[in-house]
Formats: sequence, structure tokens, C-alpha cells
Amino acid sequence: MKSNNSTRPVVSFPKLALLAAVFLGIVFLLPRPAGLEPAAWRLLGIFVATVLGLMIEPMPGGALVLLAVTLASILGGLTIQQALAGYGDPTVWLVMAAFFISRALINTGLARRIALFFVRLFGKSSLGISYALSASDMVLASIIPSNAARSGGVVLPIMRSIAELYGSQPGATAALLGSFLFTAVYQNICVTAAMFFTGQASNPLAAQMAAQAGYTVTWTSWFLAGIVPGLCSLTIVPMVVLRLNPPKIRHTPEAAAFASRELAAMGPLSREEKIMATVFATVCGMWVTSGWHKVDITVTALLGSAALLVSGVLKWEDVKSERAAWDIFIWYGGLLRLGKALGDAGVTTEFAGGVAGIFGGASWELLFAAGLLIYFYAHYGFASITAHMLAMYPAFLALFAAKAAPLGLVVYAFACFTNLAAGLTHYGTTPSPMFYAHGYVSFRRWWTTGFVVSLINIAIWSVVGFSWWKLLGLW
Amino acid sequence: MKSNNSTRPVVSFPKLALLAAVFLGIVFLLPRPAGLEPAAWRLLGIFVATVLGLMIEPMPGGALVLLAVTLASILGGLTIQQALAGYGDPTVWLVMAAFFISRALINTGLARRIALFFVRLFGKSSLGISYALSASDMVLASIIPSNAARSGGVVLPIMRSIAELYGSQPGATAALLGSFLFTAVYQNICVTAAMFFTGQASNPLAAQMAAQAGYTVTWTSWFLAGIVPGLCSLTIVPMVVLRLNPPKIRHTPEAAAFASRELAAMGPLSREEKIMATVFATVCGMWVTSGWHKVDITVTALLGSAALLVSGVLKWEDVKSERAAWDIFIWYGGLLRLGKALGDAGVTTEFAGGVAGIFGGASWELLFAAGLLIYFYAHYGFASITAHMLAMYPAFLALFAAKAAPLGLVVYAFACFTNLAAGLTHYGTTPSPMFYAHGYVSFRRWWTTGFVVSLINIAIWSVVGFSWWKLLGLW
Repeated sequence: MKSNNSTRPVVSFPKLALLAAVFLGIVFLLPRPAGLEPAAWRLLGIFVATVLGLMIEPMPGGALVLLAVTLASILGGLTIQQALAGYGDPTVWLVMAAFFISRALINTGLARRIALFFVRLFGKSSLGISYALSASDMVLASIIPSNAARSGGVVLPIMRSIAELYGSQPGATAALLGSFLFTAVYQNICVTAAMFFTGQASNPLAAQMAAQAGYTVTWTSWFLAGIVPGLCSLTIVPMVVLRLNPPKIRHTPEAAAFASRELAAMGPLSREEKIMATVFATVCGMWVTSGWHKVDITVTALLGSAALLVSGVLKWEDVKSERAAWDIFIWYGGLLRLGKALGDAGVTTEFAGGVAGIFGGASWELLFAAGLLIYFYAHYGFASITAHMLAMYPAFLALFAAKAAPLGLVVYAFACFTNLAAGLTHYGTTPSPMFYAHGYVSFRRWWTTGFVVSLINIAIWSVVGFSWWKLLGLW
Repeated sequence: MKSNNSTRPVVSFPKLALLAAVFLGIVFLLPRPAGLEPAAWRLLGIFVATVLGLMIEPMPGGALVLLAVTLASILGGLTIQQALAGYGDPTVWLVMAAFFISRALINTGLARRIALFFVRLFGKSSLGISYALSASDMVLASIIPSNAARSGGVVLPIMRSIAELYGSQPGATAALLGSFLFTAVYQNICVTAAMFFTGQASNPLAAQMAAQAGYTVTWTSWFLAGIVPGLCSLTIVPMVVLRLNPPKIRHTPEAAAFASRELAAMGPLSREEKIMATVFATVCGMWVTSGWHKVDITVTALLGSAALLVSGVLKWEDVKSERAAWDIFIWYGGLLRLGKALGDAGVTTEFAGGVAGIFGGASWELLFAAGLLIYFYAHYGFASITAHMLAMYPAFLALFAAKAAPLGLVVYAFACFTNLAAGLTHYGTTPSPMFYAHGYVSFRRWWTTGFVVSLINIAIWSVVGFSWWKLLGLW
């Protein structure tokens, strides 16, 4: 949805017609609850058609959202001011500022240096390499919300180089080392995405939707919630994958030596890297402590970008040319606003009331367990974490709020599970096809690994995670 | 300020220090009126330092504005929500949507076809060529707010080709045809910028500032106000320039033939061009009639972009890669909001009250005449119409509002004069250096032409313009 569709030249009119039919179906066939305005019902039609559009992609997601925003101002009962308000939303600008910082983190080479550092430290065995790369991705996930840039842009190239170092290429030699590394690390980048507020671009969106449902999620609270089950998964998953896709080469001193050589070639930290490291540490430090000093995390991120711009570490040209960021900006700001408007118009509450009425007899615990599983495995149908979150997250939140389930548990469980579920397929989130396309792993092996790891992750996060969250007082 | 600084790698710390000093000077040395909060005074400091920064450019304008927006949320008494709100402003999105439409207008070749059409029609004499190119620029100015894209990107290459067709190159042969064309057309692109709401990117900004001062400017009202004095200038200015920089070649049948050949080579209108022409005509038609059907002009522009995206005439990739648009987006949204915030905080009113007190004795007519002249020639100090408008326009509006001068006259006179004044120098607006850099015209000749034409333009707009506006009932 983010980058891979950008070069597709064709707009699919049959698919657009389907979206129009869905819209018309909702507006004219679906019975409108008495409490809702016709405009609210049309807004629902626009929203559903848009989310469906993000899944079937009749045209690039950003273009579709821009169209939806425009239509919302004509048909959905919003003024054009209200429809466009998402583009001034601090959450959206948090993501933008983090994107700008990411660009500098990658351009200065610091991100690569961090990854090489971990490989030098842990890279003497194949399992160690997978830990090193996961650890790098985890550190970067604390500030880089683009998993495509982080996992696909920084971690992936180093992993490929290491596999080739041991003569493991796609095909006959894949099983030497590559197939293990690609599956183990891919599974772990879905875990790191679940661990942070900034782990993945739509996590702040989940936080926004939670706020609308009356529950506040901060960078710090997500960090605390994610760290324990996250570290468990990051440790256990590669061990499981090691049994599923055992590499022939277990002992890999050459990988650590490779990292040493690369680090030596990079020389000491450059002026740019030093400034970058300082900004990185300061921004993360400010985020962790934001509960105390109350500086808004968007302000911190913008100050971080500004510091990089003023020091010349980040070029303005890079900001203007950050196409992926501008793409995300348009669909993100638009969808955020439409979701909010839907809540404001009372549609979400109405829906939850209806569903809660149907399941009136069931306990929330039973519904929660069933709901989480359905939600998780529904990701087989999604090519994007954001689309999944948009389509299902607010509905489940509203449902469980209506059932008086503990909101903290619901908010974190569903938000984290959306990210973990991306591991199921080779298209679950933007970097998935980047990893899969290297061709080290067959379709069958990729999906088998995804399914087995999904059981492990669900077990870890339900047992360790939910207990930890109980301990934290989140529920 | 828009494109030419983008490749400049250096951030100037002495200049940044100067801006900091200006900020501190305003906050600590300038006596704060009793009615204003300290935060409002700091906001003024940020605003003045930013506008000064756009003039002296310690770093790219966009980066500076992003920094200013962030600081406004820390020091200026705004929440981060308020500081970022400009990025959801319909005026800003009108400009963005128009930028996207412009991209398609240029990419499909329709813009070039329009220009060639006029050259074929009027291009049999050198004066005719200048009229043809001015007419093309005028037609395009009705929808393309980027004068760099329109005048620099479409009109300029055709003009250069025609000059070369007659053997007129920079240097010895410049006087054959090129020096006349470059000066005449350059002067006229400053007139076309003044004629439309969308004639130049900061015109909608002027309209916003006028709205804040209590006066509504629409696309239609600007069109009506600009058309009569604009056509007068477009007709008379090339005649004046013909005397100032007489071309040796007066009869140019080859230019019209060239346009014919180029048009023949382009063949009939392509599918893309037909769709583009329909969207162009529809959007402009909807704008002209917006007073009647009340569809917001931003909605119209967004629908136009959407139609181009859906029909595949505009590629999403082009939207994401429209670096100039994203650059403008950042400084525009930020400055728009800071200006509004300054008004909301009472700073503008306070200023106007103070200045009006000083000139208490003078009649508004005298002040108006003196003010307009000062305002016009102050453009010698500006490398950007936007910077000029931001720095001086709201202050003059507030002053004349306080003097109870007829606001309609003040609003249009100052707004149009900012654009006309860009003709004074070879750096007055983004396309100026593009034209000047071709090297057909010496510095001395460029400035002499600019000065003489400024007198003509001031005469035309003061006599014909103000009378026409009286007739329209604008004052």
C-alpha cells in the first residue's frame, strides 16, 4: 500500500465501480439507525469503501484517500476545513518528523553502524546473527516508524551480505544460512513493530483511536507495555525458527569479522554521526521522560528534525524529496480525520451497541479470546497493517468498551496483535515483500514458519504480556 | 526562496545568530503594549525573525518555517495543535491541488500546446510573439499558482527557441530579438501574476490576510478586479519595452511557422490532453461561478485533482515527487498559521493603532499614495513576493483599516502591487533568475526596463485599475 503500488500505472475501473457499489449499498440498502444523520451514514459508506479500497487497490492508497477526503466534504456532512483537519494533526506530524529523523539516521550511516555493531558483538553463530539483527531493528524502532526504511533499508542489506559471505545464495545454497536468517529476522521485525509507539507508522493511529475510545496511550506507556513480551518473543522466536529452518552453518565467526571490517572501514564516528547520535538519544530520552516534563512528543520530534536541519546533518532537499513520507502523510492525515469524524457522528458507538446487543449473553473474556484470534488471523486478508487496523481496530475497541471489558488490555492487545500478525504472510506489511523477494525461502516454508510463529507469539503475548500488563496496572 | 536555495548546502550560523538577536531584541527591548500577553510578544519575535529569515536565508525557507512553527508551540503561547493547524487549512490545500493540476497540465503537453497555439496565431511579428507568450501565461495563470512552473517551465523554453530560430543568442546577437522578448515577456508575467487569485502562490495568502482584516476576496472577485487593468498592462507594457529594447527583427513569420510545425508534430489532442482540457475548463468554470453554486474553490480544485488521478492523467508518483509543492506546503501552512495567530493575539491591531496614532493628522488618501509607493519600491529588497507580502501586507491593511480607508481598494491595490513590483529586479520572484540567467539582457538594461515599466504599471493600475474598482463597487 505504501511503496510497492507507486509504480503501478493503471487505475482499475472495475474495482472503483465495486467501491462505488459498496458505498451505494451502505447508503441505500443498509438500514440506518434512528439516532444517526443521513450524512453520518454516507460518511460510513465513504469510510468503508476507502478501507476496502486500501485492500483491493483500484488506485494508489494516497490518491484514494485524497478523493475520500474531498467526497467527505461534499457528502459526509463535514466542511472542507473539517475534512482537511487531519493534515494539521500532531500525530501525523509526529510520524512526519520521525520520518525526517529516520532519513538522517540512514543517510549518515549511523543506522548501519548500529546494526554492524550488534553483528560484531553477537554474530559468531547463526542464531547470534539473528539476535544481532533483531536487536538493531529494535533499537531503530524506538524512533523510526517506517519499518520499510528500518527493516527493509538498513537490516536487510546487511543480512543479505552475511548470507552471501557464507556462500548462501537463493536456490541450492539457501539452506546453508540464508533461509534461516530471512525467516527468523523477518518474524522478529514484526515483533519490534509491536513493541513501540513508533515501531510502525500506524501505531500512533491506534493510539489516536484508543484516545477516541477514552484510553490514553503514550510513547512511554507503550514502551513499558511492549518491552517484556517483546524481549521474550525476540529471544524465543529465532530459537523456534532455528528448529523449523535449521541452517547447515551454525558457527559464523566470519560474520563478526565482516562486521569488524566494515566498522573499521567506516572509521571513527563522523561529525554528522555524532550529532545524529546525540539527537537520537535526546529525542528518545525526552520521549521516555515525557510523563515528567510534559513536552509533547510531536514537539520533541520536530525539535529533533530542526536540530538536524540547523546542523546540516539533514538536508532540506531530503525532506522535500521524502516521497514515502508525503505518501503516508496524505493517506494518514485523511484516514485519521475520517475515523475521528465517524466517531464524532456517533457511528462507532452505534455499531458497538448493536454488536454488544447480539453477544449480550457472552462474557467479555470469552468474546475477547475469540475476538483476538479472529482479528489476528484476519491478517491473511490484509496487505497492510494500517488497513487492518483501520478496518477492525476501532470496531473491536467500541465493542469491548460496550461490554465493559478492561480497556487497557483491549487497547494494547489488539494494537500489538495487528503488528505481530504481519508475520503470517509474505505481504503482511511493507517490508514483507522486500524480504520474501530475495528468494531464499519458498512460499510454503514462509507461510509455515509464519503460522507456527504466530502460535508462539500469541502464547507469549497472552501469557507473559497480559500478566505483565496486569502487573503494570493496565487492567 | 522556493527552488533556487534548495541545493545550497550550507546553513549560515552568523545569519541564524542575527535572527536569534532580532527575536531577543523584540522580546526584551521592544516595549510591550499593556494589552498584550508576553507570549504574544514572543510570537511577534518569532514571526519577525522568520520573515527576516526568508529574506536573508540562513537556511532553506521551509526548514526555517518548520522551526518557527515548533518554537511557536513552545514560546509563542500556541498549543502544538494550534501551531500545526495551517497544514489543514483549505487555502493551503487549494494551492496544493492547483499544483497537482499544474503538473498534469505540463506533463500532458497541453500547456505547451496552448502557448504554441497563441504563437501561431499572433507570432508573425516580434511584438506579436510577446503578446502570444503573455496571453499563454495569462490563460495558464487562471489555474497554475506556480509562476516558476508556468512562466519558467512552459513559456520560457518556447521563447528561447523562437529567439534562436532568428539567430538571436546571448551576446552580440541578443539585440536581434532575444533581449526584447526576454524583457517584454518577463514584465508581463509579473502582470499575469497580479491578475488572478491563483496567479501566484502567495495571492491566496493575501486573500487570507484580507479575510482576517474583515474583507472577503474570492477567485471571482479577484478575476473581475484584475482583468481590466491587467489587460491594459499586458497590451501597453510590450509596446513600451519595444521602444526601450528595440529588436532588429520586427517581422517574424518563421516564429508562427515554427509554432505550426511544432503543433503539427504534436498531432491531434491525445486522450490525456482532452481529459486535461475538460478538467481545466471545468475547474475554472466552477471557480468563476462559485458565487452562484457555493461549492468551495478548494473542493473544486481537489475534485479536479481527483478526476485527473482517477483517469490516470496524473500519476500518484508525480504527486508524491512534487518537491516544489511540498516545499511550499511547509512554509505556506506554517506562515499562514503564524500570521493568523498574531492577529488572534491582538498584535496586528495593536500595531495598526500605534501607527495610525502617529499619522493621526494625515488623510487616508495621502497616506495611501505614499504607502503604495513605499510598498512597491520596497520590493528592491525582496527576493520573493511571499516574503514581501508577509512582511508588509498585513501591517498596511491594519493601518488603513484603522484609518477607515475603503478596505476593498486597499486590499486589491497592495495585493496586486506586490506582484507587479516583482518586475523591478532579476530576483524579485522565483522565475526572475530563470529568465535573467539566459544572459540575453545586461543587468543595467534589465533594471532600467524594470524601473520604467514600474512607472507605467503604477500609472495604469492607479488610473484604470482604481477607476474600474470604483465602477465594480469595490470601494
